[in-house]
Amino acid sequence: MRSFSAVDVITTKRDGGVLSDDSIRWVLAAYQRGEVAEEQMSALLMAVFFRGLSTTELATWTDQMIASGDRLDLRGLSRPTVDKHSTGGVGDKISLILAPLVAACGAAVPQLSGRGLGHTGGTLDKLESIPGWRATLSNDEIRAQLEDVGAVICAAGSGLAPVDRRLYALRDVTATVASIPLIASSIMSKKIAEGTGALVLDVKFGSGAFMTDVDRARELAHTMVGLGLDHGVKTVAHLTPMQTPLGRAVGNALEVTESVEVLRGGGPPDVRQLTLALATLMLELVDLHVDPATKLDDGSAYEVYERMIRAQGGDPDADLPVAPLRHVVVATRSGYVQHVDALTVGVAAWRLGAGRARKEDGVSASAGVLVLVRAGDHVDAGEPLFELRAEDGAHLQRGLDAIGEAVGIVDEVPVFSLPPILNVVRE
Amino acid sequence: MRSFSAVDVITTKRDGGVLSDDSIRWVLAAYQRGEVAEEQMSALLMAVFFRGLSTTELATWTDQMIASGDRLDLRGLSRPTVDKHSTGGVGDKISLILAPLVAACGAAVPQLSGRGLGHTGGTLDKLESIPGWRATLSNDEIRAQLEDVGAVICAAGSGLAPVDRRLYALRDVTATVASIPLIASSIMSKKIAEGTGALVLDVKFGSGAFMTDVDRARELAHTMVGLGLDHGVKTVAHLTPMQTPLGRAVGNALEVTESVEVLRGGGPPDVRQLTLALATLMLELVDLHVDPATKLDDGSAYEVYERMIRAQGGDPDADLPVAPLRHVVVATRSGYVQHVDALTVGVAAWRLGAGRARKEDGVSASAGVLVLVRAGDHVDAGEPLFELRAEDGAHLQRGLDAIGEAVGIVDEVPVFSLPPILNVVRE
Repeated sequence: MRSFSAVDVITTKRDGGVLSDDSIRWVLAAYQRGEVAEEQMSALLMAVFFRGLSTTELATWTDQMIASGDRLDLRGLSRPTVDKHSTGGVGDKISLILAPLVAACGAAVPQLSGRGLGHTGGTLDKLESIPGWRATLSNDEIRAQLEDVGAVICAAGSGLAPVDRRLYALRDVTATVASIPLIASSIMSKKIAEGTGALVLDVKFGSGAFMTDVDRARELAHTMVGLGLDHGVKTVAHLTPMQTPLGRAVGNALEVTESVEVLRGGGPPDVRQLTLALATLMLELVDLHVDPATKLDDGSAYEVYERMIRAQGGDPDADLPVAPLRHVVVATRSGYVQHVDALTVGVAAWRLGAGRARKEDGVSASAGVLVLVRAGDHVDAGEPLFELRAEDGAHLQRGLDAIGEAVGIVDEVPVFSLPPILNVVRE
Repeated sequence: MRSFSAVDVITTKRDGGVLSDDSIRWVLAAYQRGEVAEEQMSALLMAVFFRGLSTTELATWTDQMIASGDRLDLRGLSRPTVDKHSTGGVGDKISLILAPLVAACGAAVPQLSGRGLGHTGGTLDKLESIPGWRATLSNDEIRAQLEDVGAVICAAGSGLAPVDRRLYALRDVTATVASIPLIASSIMSKKIAEGTGALVLDVKFGSGAFMTDVDRARELAHTMVGLGLDHGVKTVAHLTPMQTPLGRAVGNALEVTESVEVLRGGGPPDVRQLTLALATLMLELVDLHVDPATKLDDGSAYEVYERMIRAQGGDPDADLPVAPLRHVVVATRSGYVQHVDALTVGVAAWRLGAGRARKEDGVSASAGVLVLVRAGDHVDAGEPLFELRAEDGAHLQRGLDAIGEAVGIVDEVPVFSLPPILNVVRE
C-alpha cells in the first residue's frame, strides 16, 4: 500500500477536502500498526467531527475497519441470517425476546453484542444474570448453535473490527464520540464483520437515547442503512422514541424476568409492540411470511429462548438474583403523571449498580428500577412511583439521589403529541 | 485550582462554547503535569482550530503559558527595553542589523530567539556561522550585556513558556499549527516572558511567509498586538510583504555578510529600508527621538554589532565559512524578470543545507542562494540568475532541483501593483 503523511491526511480533512481511498486505508492501517500516533488520530477524528465524511469516504473507512480483523462466514447455514442492532435505550431488553422469536419464525439470528456503558444497559450484562450462562463462544460454536437453535446472543470477539475498539476508546476520551459517520462506521463495521445477511437497526431518539434529536437519529439511520446496503447486507432502520423507559423493568435480572413475560405472551404492551414491529421488519428482509405474534402466544418463542440459554450453559428455570434492599419512591402530590423521563431512570439504575462507568467495571445483576406508573396515569400523594433495588445502602442512596426528577405530576390530564410509533428508514 | 474533566473542556470548545478562565488554566497546567494526555490536547487544539478563542480566552490561555515557566525581569536596566519579532521570511536577516542599530540609538534590545525550521531561516543559525559565537547565555549574562552593550541576541531558555514547547511539537504533528490564536499565544507568551517593555512585530505575508494571505496576517497582527497590550507590553505590528527574498543573500553566513554591509551603511536597499522602518517603530515605542539612518551611516551601529558579537565569544573580523561548491543558474531565455519567488528560493536554500526539516537536524553555515536579479530587471539568455552554494554534490543537486521555477521571465516590461510598503497595525 502507498504510504502517506499523517499530517497531510489530517490537513486535507481539516480543510474540508476529500480523502482518497488509499489515504483512508493507509491512515487506519498505520494507526493499527502504531505508526500513526494516538494524538494524530484524535486530531483526525476531531477534523472528521467538524467536516464529516462523504458517502465514498465513509464506505472506505468502514471497509478498512472490517478489513482490520476477521469476518465471520455464515453462508453455509440452512436458514437465512438476520440480526438487529439497537443504538441503546433505557429498559431496552428487546434483543432477549426478539432473537428467539425470529428464530422461532425460521430465521437464524447471530447477535454479537457488547456490554453496557453509562445509563444504557447491555444485552450481555442482562443475560449474565442467569446462573451459568456464558457470553463467550468460538466461531464454530456460534455456527453450530445458529444451525441447531437458530439464535445466538454472545460477545463479539476481539477479532471483529479490532481497530474500532481502539478508535472507540480514543473517541471516548477526546470528545469525538458524537459524530454520525464515526458512530455509523463503528456500529456497521462490527455488524458487517459478524456475517449477517440482513440487519434491522433500532435507532433511538429522545432523552434516554444517545441521539436526543430525531433529525440526527434519522441521519444516522440513513447513513447506516446506506453502509449496510453497500456491503451487501439487506438493511433497514426503525426510528424509535426513547423519551420514557421501555417496559417497567430497568436493570439486568429485572429485565430478564420481564423478557420472559413477553416471551410467554404477556408483559408490558410497549415491549411486545416494539418487539413485533422489529420482528416483522426482520422477517420481511429474509422473505419469511410468518406472523410473529403467534409465536409469542403459542409458546414456541419461549421454547427457543430456553434452548438458546441452555446451549450457552444457562439454566432458564433457575431463580435470578434478587437485591436485598428495596425502596419504594412515592408521589409527593396528587395529579396526573405527565412524563417518566428515560434518562433520569437510566441514570438512577446505573447509580444503583446496574450499569458501569468504565469498561472494566462489573455490574450488579439484581440492582435496578421498577417503573410503576406510565404517563397519563392518575396518582394520589403517597402512591408508589418506582421501586428501587440495590445490593447495599451506598448504592441505594446514589439511586435515590438520581431518581428525583424522573416523574412530573400535573393537575390537568396531560395531552400527548405522540411521536410516530413506526418509522422505518429504507434507502 | 479547581479540577475539570478534559472531555468536558474539549466538548465545550468543540460545540462553540466559551471556556472559563479556570478551565483554561486547569487544562494547560494538567497537560504540563501529564494528567491531560497528548491525544486529548490535540483534540482540543483541533477544536480551537475550528472554533477559535475569544479575546478573553486567548488572554487567559497566553497568561497560563507564561505562568508555566520563568519570566525575565529586565526592569532594573538604565535603558528602555524594546524587541522585534518576525514571523519568518526568506532572507530575513533584519534582526542582526536591527538589534545593534536600535541599541546604538539608546534602547536595550533583548532578542531571545529560536532556530529556523523549514524554508525560513533562524537568527541563531545565522549568527552561529560566526566563529566562536555562542547562543546560550544565563539570565545574569543577558542583563549585564543589555546594560553594557545594549543588544543581546541569544537562545530563549527552556524555562520561558515551557508548555509552548510541548504544544508546538504536538501541533506540528497534528496539523494544528495554522490557527491564529495558537500562533499568537505561542509567539506572545515567549516574548512577554522575555521581559521586554515594548515590542514591534514584523508580520510577513506572501508566498515566502507562513501566512500567505494578507488578511490573515493582519488578523494575526491585531491579535498579537492586543495580547501584548493586555500584558503591559507596548506593542505594534508591521505588515511586510514576503513575495520575494529580502536582500540578495539567503543562507546563514551569506546573510551575516549582507547584514554587515547594511550595518556599514551599504547593502541592498530593501534590507536597509525595512530595517529603518522597524527601527523607527521601535524607537517611537520607547520615546527615543533619533534618526536611525544616521547610526548606520556614521558606523555606530556597526560598532555596537562588533561589541555584541564579541560579548558572546564571536570574532566579528573572522573569515566566515565559504562553501566549496558553487553553481550559477542562468536564464534560459531573454526578457524581463517578472518575479523572484520567495518560497522557491527559501526551499532551495533549505535543500542546499541552510535549513533543517526537523528540530534535531544541524544546518550548514555556508550553504545558500545568492539572488542576482530583481523583478523588473532585463536579462539575456545565459545571464546569471542565482548562485547556489553547497558543501557537497548531493545537496547542490537538491538545491538545483528545487530552484527551477523561482524566476519568471516575460517579454513585456512587467507592471507591478506593489503591496503597501509600510503598513502598521496599532490597537
